[in-house]
Amino acid sequence: MMYGGRTLDNIFSNPVAAANIVDDPVLFVKSALSDLEPEEFESVSGFPMLKEAQGWILFDCTCKKGKDISVVEFSPREAKINKRTIKPVNRGFNAVIEAAIHATRYVILKEPEYLERINYYDTIVKKCGGTREKVAMRLLYELIGHQKSAYQ
Amino acid sequence: MMYGGRTLDNIFSNPVAAANIVDDPVLFVKSALSDLEPEEFESVSGFPMLKEAQGWILFDCTCKKGKDISVVEFSPREAKINKRTIKPVNRGFNAVIEAAIHATRYVILKEPEYLERINYYDTIVKKCGGTREKVAMRLLYELIGHQKSAYQ
Repeated sequence: MMYGGRTLDNIFSNPVAAANIVDDPVLFVKSALSDLEPEEFESVSGFPMLKEAQGWILFDCTCKKGKDISVVEFSPREAKINKRTIKPVNRGFNAVIEAAIHATRYVILKEPEYLERINYYDTIVKKCGGTREKVAMRLLYELIGHQKSAYQ
Repeated sequence: MMYGGRTLDNIFSNPVAAANIVDDPVLFVKSALSDLEPEEFESVSGFPMLKEAQGWILFDCTCKKGKDISVVEFSPREAKINKRTIKPVNRGFNAVIEAAIHATRYVILKEPEYLERINYYDTIVKKCGGTREKVAMRLLYELIGHQKSAYQ
């Protein structure tokens, strides 16, 4: 089920979609809160896929347009695995993902509770994250207009 | 740095330690809040490793005992990768990990704020988790003595 928005408009005009499986926290934050650069994509079967993805799935979409909510069915057409890895749980990485989700709400609704959640996850990133997670959080704060002195 | 406790006592009496890399949320909850069954382990180089682990690292430990805090240095001696996978981010899985961490604090301190955090992560598991994550949360609530009707 999807509400209206740019993603839904795109699927209606061209009923294909790609899921990129990504493990770089910076790429997550960038794609959640801004537009990625064209050079971060490569063309696969005429579709732009992320070069850095661990793998991707290309879906054919069937759309049933509703008034407020539309239903889109995704049928996998093609998939590729670029790299298989072994990764221990990284609480810092996971915290970046949650922070990025709250950030997408914060930039639209500006409600302080989202910023509080982001700051909470930031404490986990500071404690458990690696360099890449800390770069991602600094970028997140920049993209939502809250530069934190601790990350300068 | 480690505070006193059973893990530290074990390392002092036998200065080796193993890190098991695990991707099953049920195994995480079980090992955080209870003791695993002997049949969940296999002996590797005379050391018990989790059969279900994606991989493990065996460390030699050098211990410097302090009054409150001891310092343990881990030097990898041997490692094995059992399986490499490609896994998309699973917010439900990540929420189980956070809930399990708060649960380890809750069972000791019984402070309601930990239970609130667990309940918060539980809403994410309900929304984003798969079957295995839901089984893990049900077990978590059982092990901390709070059976939630929604999981019966």
